[in-house]
This record gives sequence, structure tokens and C-alpha cells, in this order.
Amino acid sequence: MTLPFATRLNNVETSAIRELFKLLGKPGIISFAGGFPDSAMFDVPGIKESAAKALAEEPGAALQYGATEGYEPLRTQLAHFMQAKGAQDVEPQGLIVTTGSQQALDLLGKTMISPGDKVIVEAPTFLATIQCFRLYGADLVTAPVDAHGVQTDKLEKLIAEHKPKLVYLIPTFGNPSGAMLSRERRLKVLELAKKYKTLVVEDDPYGDLYFGEAPPPSILALSREVPGSREWIAHCGSLSKVLSPGLRVGWLVAQPELLAKATMCKQFSDAHTSTFAQATAAQYLKSGRMPDTLHRVRQVYAERAKAMGDALQKDLGDAIEFTRPNGGLFFWARLTGNGGKLKDSGELAKRAIEKGVAFVPGAPFFATNPDLSTLRLSFATVGVDKIVEGVGRLGAAVSR
Amino acid sequence: MTLPFATRLNNVETSAIRELFKLLGKPGIISFAGGFPDSAMFDVPGIKESAAKALAEEPGAALQYGATEGYEPLRTQLAHFMQAKGAQDVEPQGLIVTTGSQQALDLLGKTMISPGDKVIVEAPTFLATIQCFRLYGADLVTAPVDAHGVQTDKLEKLIAEHKPKLVYLIPTFGNPSGAMLSRERRLKVLELAKKYKTLVVEDDPYGDLYFGEAPPPSILALSREVPGSREWIAHCGSLSKVLSPGLRVGWLVAQPELLAKATMCKQFSDAHTSTFAQATAAQYLKSGRMPDTLHRVRQVYAERAKAMGDALQKDLGDAIEFTRPNGGLFFWARLTGNGGKLKDSGELAKRAIEKGVAFVPGAPFFATNPDLSTLRLSFATVGVDKIVEGVGRLGAAVSR
Repeated sequence: MTLPFATRLNNVETSAIRELFKLLGKPGIISFAGGFPDSAMFDVPGIKESAAKALAEEPGAALQYGATEGYEPLRTQLAHFMQAKGAQDVEPQGLIVTTGSQQALDLLGKTMISPGDKVIVEAPTFLATIQCFRLYGADLVTAPVDAHGVQTDKLEKLIAEHKPKLVYLIPTFGNPSGAMLSRERRLKVLELAKKYKTLVVEDDPYGDLYFGEAPPPSILALSREVPGSREWIAHCGSLSKVLSPGLRVGWLVAQPELLAKATMCKQFSDAHTSTFAQATAAQYLKSGRMPDTLHRVRQVYAERAKAMGDALQKDLGDAIEFTRPNGGLFFWARLTGNGGKLKDSGELAKRAIEKGVAFVPGAPFFATNPDLSTLRLSFATVGVDKIVEGVGRLGAAVSR
Repeated sequence: MTLPFATRLNNVETSAIRELFKLLGKPGIISFAGGFPDSAMFDVPGIKESAAKALAEEPGAALQYGATEGYEPLRTQLAHFMQAKGAQDVEPQGLIVTTGSQQALDLLGKTMISPGDKVIVEAPTFLATIQCFRLYGADLVTAPVDAHGVQTDKLEKLIAEHKPKLVYLIPTFGNPSGAMLSRERRLKVLELAKKYKTLVVEDDPYGDLYFGEAPPPSILALSREVPGSREWIAHCGSLSKVLSPGLRVGWLVAQPELLAKATMCKQFSDAHTSTFAQATAAQYLKSGRMPDTLHRVRQVYAERAKAMGDALQKDLGDAIEFTRPNGGLFFWARLTGNGGKLKDSGELAKRAIEKGVAFVPGAPFFATNPDLSTLRLSFATVGVDKIVEGVGRLGAAVSR
């Protein structure tokens, strides 16, 4: 028997990537397929201490039901965290805590998207956003991305044409593009939000993971330079990539009316985010360990990114093109087919697995018109030696 | 400016109860308005030890991304927990972990309910279920409840007439009814599920909180006595009322196809439930402390329930009618208006606040046709002396 499932499920399909992930158990595989931080770099002692402190100092609050908006001491810490990154006007009551930033996306979908509504996303963009918004009936339109992030001239044409319910961007070291939106384009996005009265969602889980110079301030932080733009910006933050995904602590900054609606939706989604995890995160941020943790994480990822860039150039040469990322977890690349080498990344993925290396083909990251020659490689969880070895295998696989 | 919110938000309104809760800050108020366990009874040392153990033994898993279905050791422990309560056929892969049982309800809504679908709920039922299902466009139909739970003869007529997408029940010490569905009616519900091929959702956060004799086995557990009924039953469980709401650990038991769809929806809702909270809960269940914890909680709530029942009889007499609950957190009562006393519980709530005692009027718990003379009183978080004092104040308030 089959249950009469809701029609919204017809809008999504099980991810092609899931099938690939099943192959990753093969012994000896070097995997660039992940999209997660390296668990070897979690500050376990710091988190352990923070959890113990939370239970010692505030056991009632840490274990009881809490406000849907979030645990006040954490909201305060997160506001400080945002302020330190240039978003000076973020107050504790200007954000709500979400169960990972994935939930912020879900709440934005639930709050904003009616079936058939147009939503603009980058091409390529985060897979789970595509699926999340489609479950709410979004009709996705894609805006092209280059090495400097979304192309704002094309974005403006798309906004004017489609009048979208919202525009979703990952401006800083995006997944999968790795691109960093230039300061100039950020300001342009703010102008567009204001001019077209269009909500722009800035998803920013990677912005703290820069390798050298800090990226431009977030679109949220820059909104102060474009008077009247702030109310059109929603910003999603997360501790997942910088501290621990297992805490499931994210947050949403937005104007009051939107926050109130998102809070109402959250009340009926999961009541509130684990107060135990929230109290632990609040203690951690309060402990002052975060700057050192960030420093260490940046350094390690920078080394790995350099190793991957060097190896790709050396072993794949003109069979591949890419821009080295300035931060984040990902290389985004395109197979050129030069010299008769492979141009189809899905085909390459299969051969690569045979050679003992895995990555994710780029096609699923496109909500429309997939580019079959693209691929995403994550260096985050692989040591430098293994990166060199894995890219070597990839070089062998691409040569047919 | 106002954002163009999704049309689904038109189906819900901010809860009337929220307004009432704002008044609870008044000094000296004795509150029977809560719907939560007493935080003084949380096993803080046990949870602290479990969290430390989780971080010591499995830091990677406890802090990293995890499977959307749930952390395997927790799924195993929860399956044991369900088996020990008579649902012997629940295997670890037969359940998924959810972010509180509220999320199980949300996933059922997302998975099953298309706009306009009929859904049958009890009258009265859990407020957040009403709102959660309405956000997915459910057209709610209500089935009456008496002291023995939902009236199955009337339920059958409603199922036959409305052909609902699902039937939602809280059969054991329901919120707010406090009623316990009889074994006979449970079997009847199973027959109806099978006969009409209708999904029945059993929400069971309170079943472990019995005061004397254990209640009949859950509908899920009894499904073995009605061959062919099991696939039509979904069961929501929770650690919130027995261990800690702050962990946000609930679970959903259902047939494989429904679980797979719910898992897909969960992937795009919050990716997974906090692995930190899951690993802590798994260690706690493994530690063997749960039986003692349950024993202690049952004892304290039983004393408080008895105190409240005695005081209501003494101080309100025939101005009120109610059935003493056999478990859970709530008294559900009806004002009779006898002797010219108050019959409107909304009016009583206002006067009671003036006298220094709070409760929740019953009307919002009805998805249709509210009974304005009903009220919900929770004894869970108030000591016996304060219960006596608070009910005394209520007696003064009801007399006008």
C-alpha cells in the first residue's frame, strides 16, 4: 500500500549525490566529496568545559523548555559576534536562534514562499536550499556566478523580469562556488534589494573561514552604507563550520516583522532549538576561545586549499579550470576537455571512484540548466599528503 | 513596508494563550498555566555525566554532522525503550530521531497534508498541533473526547464522512484532556485505521507519567493484536516530559515509506537533530538511570495531582466538574455555573490573575466549536502547599 502523500513532495527528488555517497565506504577512498568541517579540529576540551559550565550554572534553563526566539544569553553572544564582524546594529532581539542555519532557510521558505512564487538562487547554489524552497512550491530562477560571485547586472534583469519573492545568495566562499562576492557587487545587491523592494537572503556559514585577508563585510554589515536597504536583508549565520555542526546552532537576522513570523513558524516546527546546545554555545562564546579556534581552523584550511590548488595545476593542467578560493571549504572547477581529456564530470566521478578518489559532480547544484562539466572538491577533511595523492589519482582518471 | 508573506500564514493566528502568559510575570502569581515538567526534578548529575561521557567516548560523532535519521546508538536505545513498553517489533531502523516530538508533527504535516486536506483531531487537542497542521493547509475536523478518551463511535462516523488524510490522537493523559483512552477503544481505533486505510498518529509524550497502575499499551504496541493495522499507525515519542525538554529529543515510529519521506523532509528542515544532544541522551538511556528517574517523577506528580483534585473538590465544589487524571500533567475541567458561579473560563482567568492564580482557558484547544466553560490546570510545577493555596484563590475567583 502507498500512503496518499502531500503533493508538495512531487516537487523534489532524492538527491543524486546520495547514491554517490553510498560508494564512499569503499576502503582506501580519498574523499573530496564532503561538505563538512574536519572533526579533528573541533575544540573538544572547550566544548566539554562549556557544557559542564552550562549545566553547573544554569541547569534549569539548559534542560527546560525555552523561548522559541532563542536562549537570551546566546542571543546576546551572537549579537556580539555579529557586531565584531561589522554588523554593529545587530541587537540580541534582532536575531533568532535556529536549529542550524538549515532551519533558518526552512523558516524563510515557510514564511515567505507560496506555491508558484519565483525565487532567484545562484547557479550553482547549495543543494539543500534548492530542495528546501521547492518543498514550499518555489519556482526557482538561476542567476549566474563568476569568480567574483553573482553577476549583479544579470541579477538585476532577472529581478526586474521575475519579481521574485526573495533572492538567495551565499556571497562569501559559497557552497559550491567558493566565490567571494566583491564589495562593489555587495553594494549593488543592496541597491537592488531597495530599488525592487525584494528580500535578499544572505547565507553566510563560511565567511569566517578566510585564508589571508578578511573578505569584504557581509551584505548585512554593508547595508548601513545604503540607507533604506537594511529592512530588505535577511542574514543566516551558523556555528557549524567554525565550531561544531553537532550543536545545530544557527541564527537568522532580519527585520522585526519577518522575525516575528519566522518565530511563529518555528514554534510549530520544533518549539525551540535545544537549550542544552544553546547554553553550551553561549558559554563557549563567552569563554573567549573563539578567536583562537578560528585562527587555527583558518590556518589548517588555508594549507589544505593551497595544497589542493597546487596539485590540481600540476596533475590536471589545462584539463581543468578553476579560481583558487580565498576561504571556505571548496574548489569549484570545470573540466575543459582539452587534449581529449574527460569533459563530463559525472563520468569522471565514476572513473575517479575506481581510482580511489571521490568528489561531487556539479550538475545537482544547478536549479536549472546544469553545467555537466563542473565539479566540487572539498579539501577540508583531508590532510595535505592525502590531498596530493588524491589529486594524483584524479589526474589519472581524467586522462581516460 | 510589509513583506509579501506566504499565504499559508493566513491559516494561523498568534495564540491567545501568549497574551495570558505575559501576565504570569506578576509577583506572587501561582501558575497552573504551564505545560511543562518541573525543572527541579531533572536528573542534572545524570545528564552531566552522560554529556561528559559522550564527549569523552565519541567526540567526533557528538560534534559532527550526523545522519538525518538519527544517531545510531540513540536509535538503538530508543528502540529498546519502546520494546520495554510493549512495542516489541520496533527496531532501530523503524524510527527516526526528531527535534522534539513537535518536529515529528511538523514532518507528518509536511509529508502528508496538502492544502485543503481533512485531518481529524480530538476536541480538545494540543494547541501546537492545530497550528502546525493548519500551516500546511489542513482543514481540521474535531472528534469529541470523554473521560475515556476519543469517542470511537463518533470517530468512525467522522472518518467515513470526511475521509481524512490522517487522524491525530493523544490517547494517554492527553494535553489538555488528561484522559486515558481505554484498551477497548484503542483496539477499535486500530480496526478503524485498517478498515478505512487511514493513517492514525499516536502522540505519546505523557504515557510514562502514570500515577498508579500503568495505562493500557500504546496503540502502536496493541497493533500486533489487529493484524494489518500496524502500517497505518505512526507513533510520536519524546524525552521532554520524562527526562528534559531542553535536549529536544523526540522520535517518530512509522512504516518504512512514510519514514523515508519524513527523513527527506527533515533533511531540508534542520539536517539532523543535535548530535550532541542525541549522544548525551543515548548515554543517559544506556546508563540505566531512566527507571529510577521515571519512578521519582511519577511519585511527585501523583502527589501533586492528588492535592489538586482534593483542593478542587473542596474549594470549588459543584462549580466545577472534572475527572481525576491517572497520569500526565493536567486537569481538564468544566465550569458548571451552578449556584450562580462563573461559567466562562476566559472571564475566570482574568479574575483569577487578580486573585494571584493562573490557568489556561480551554477554548483555544478546540480546533472547532470551542467550549467556553472549559479550562486546563497543570499541577506539574507547583508544590503541594502552593497547589492548595492556588486552588483556594481560584475558589474565591469563581464565586464572583
